[in-house]
Amino acid sequence: VHALNKKETVQALIGTKNYEPKNSASSFAPVNIALVKYWGKRNSELNLPVTSSLSLSLPLGTHTSLKAHSKDLLFLNGKQVDLQTSFAKKLFDFVDLFRDKKTTLFIETKNDIPTGAGLASSASGFAALTLALNDFFSLQLSPKELSILARLGSGSASRSLFSGFVQWHKGVRDDGLDSYAEPLDARWDDLSIGLWIISDKTKPIDSRQAMQNTVESSPLYKAWPDTVSHDLSVMKEAIKTHNFSLLGRTAEQNALTMHATMLAAYPSIVYFLPESIEAMQKIWQLRKDGLEVYFTMDAGPNIKLLFLEKDRKTLESQLPNLHTHSNSIP
Amino acid sequence: VHALNKKETVQALIGTKNYEPKNSASSFAPVNIALVKYWGKRNSELNLPVTSSLSLSLPLGTHTSLKAHSKDLLFLNGKQVDLQTSFAKKLFDFVDLFRDKKTTLFIETKNDIPTGAGLASSASGFAALTLALNDFFSLQLSPKELSILARLGSGSASRSLFSGFVQWHKGVRDDGLDSYAEPLDARWDDLSIGLWIISDKTKPIDSRQAMQNTVESSPLYKAWPDTVSHDLSVMKEAIKTHNFSLLGRTAEQNALTMHATMLAAYPSIVYFLPESIEAMQKIWQLRKDGLEVYFTMDAGPNIKLLFLEKDRKTLESQLPNLHTHSNSIP
Repeated sequence: VHALNKKETVQALIGTKNYEPKNSASSFAPVNIALVKYWGKRNSELNLPVTSSLSLSLPLGTHTSLKAHSKDLLFLNGKQVDLQTSFAKKLFDFVDLFRDKKTTLFIETKNDIPTGAGLASSASGFAALTLALNDFFSLQLSPKELSILARLGSGSASRSLFSGFVQWHKGVRDDGLDSYAEPLDARWDDLSIGLWIISDKTKPIDSRQAMQNTVESSPLYKAWPDTVSHDLSVMKEAIKTHNFSLLGRTAEQNALTMHATMLAAYPSIVYFLPESIEAMQKIWQLRKDGLEVYFTMDAGPNIKLLFLEKDRKTLESQLPNLHTHSNSIP
Repeated sequence: VHALNKKETVQALIGTKNYEPKNSASSFAPVNIALVKYWGKRNSELNLPVTSSLSLSLPLGTHTSLKAHSKDLLFLNGKQVDLQTSFAKKLFDFVDLFRDKKTTLFIETKNDIPTGAGLASSASGFAALTLALNDFFSLQLSPKELSILARLGSGSASRSLFSGFVQWHKGVRDDGLDSYAEPLDARWDDLSIGLWIISDKTKPIDSRQAMQNTVESSPLYKAWPDTVSHDLSVMKEAIKTHNFSLLGRTAEQNALTMHATMLAAYPSIVYFLPESIEAMQKIWQLRKDGLEVYFTMDAGPNIKLLFLEKDRKTLESQLPNLHTHSNSIP
């Protein structure tokens, strides 16, 4: 099996015929919070990961609509976006994988959360776009195929096709056709997530670049794949048995281990703001005081709390900036 | 070869006869800043390290004097210390390795720098105490033997016997008699160190405990020994060729890699204060702006800058809290 490029991957799944566009299509895909992180690619063009990963989707995400239009236009959160920006280029490069040259589109996309602040809006964004394209061109792809295609836009988008707990299988094939996500057969309705927004500034280094620099220069990265393997099996056990302490501890250590691989890169990559350190210390203090709350952090300064529904009110009173969510799609 | 305990190690070096005490003795030992860190023990009682390490001594340190006295007394920085404190117990436990029961001492010890703030005062402290005991009991030990004995008090004290660049050889023997430090045959007079004191509060977790927790629970620790091996050979090359960029880069990455192994421990160990993050960002910004300055950090919030003498004035004007030092003993 040879590595394919993105276009060849799309053709492997939808064929080469031109699908007739509808007049319009719209979609929603959730933000997902990785409990066992994706960090490092084995193929950078196809976003094939070094390890599998596991996430939980939130009832927040990206809403995207496509309309046939006389020329390409893009609106993000109600504001027109210049097609020369890297955001627009990345998005239309993805659309180009699916359309012929005569199909131009009016795309509107809205995030329930700030863009570019490490809150995985690119994951929900590419997942929503993939779903909208599937509908717009009546491709009738399976969830597995949609996950593979969303992955081409952003690795973690493969997981944002689904609600609840989701595992992205790393796959072993060079063409990536076995690298896709699927939901776990598990529910845990009183498990809750809180977004503690420390900063909504765009991050200083994007996660794609940070990941690559870590793989290339961090002497600790070589210990990461085994860490993930171990954490994945522990996490699945914790989910199966609703062992919240085990889930929280495993998620928190996995996230900090990912940040540790970055800290050891050269130049060092530090997503922690001074306020992130304060927030971490505050959470550890709450835990010492008997409130069972854990956190995870992605490639950005913000913190995602993990707690049980029964502790929501107490936590909200302790941490006024907290936005809490159940994990079930409304 | 069997592992010895501390007393047996001392006896292996000085024999079992009682040395006649003098009336008084005094000593100085420098603070040392590790450029390639010591992190993790293979024998906790004897402070035998997992890896070798390399340091640079400062013209600051600990002054210790011993006087024959009718009972044990301890003064630290001019203030009497209760003999029931853990500080006093640790110190007299060390003294007990050398004396018989009828020898009681008035010990005065003064640090040029704050105690317990990650500025390695225990290293210079135990080195100075070892030197003072060697003099007080006329033991006439060699530098290598003194280094082995100082190591029993605090691992990095083995390096504080010497000025300039110092390598501590990890050794392979179970009895630790090949685990000692010695100075490198190298000078570099325009290499300077600045202490940027972020906080002089006593650290929340002592480095002995932090080290042990890291070895036991950090999934990244297994990549640390190879990292040190690599960094040691690069560092020695940088010192030999006076390649400041290589020295700075290697020291900075080595220190952050050590902190990364701690960040990945569970519970996570974070010596960074919010202000440490700000300071790191400030240093990276200065470097981006063309001022070649690097840093290293030990098990505490404070930062040690590495720079060349020619940049001292500029740095002092940029960072008003900085205390700068040449690396040569005055």
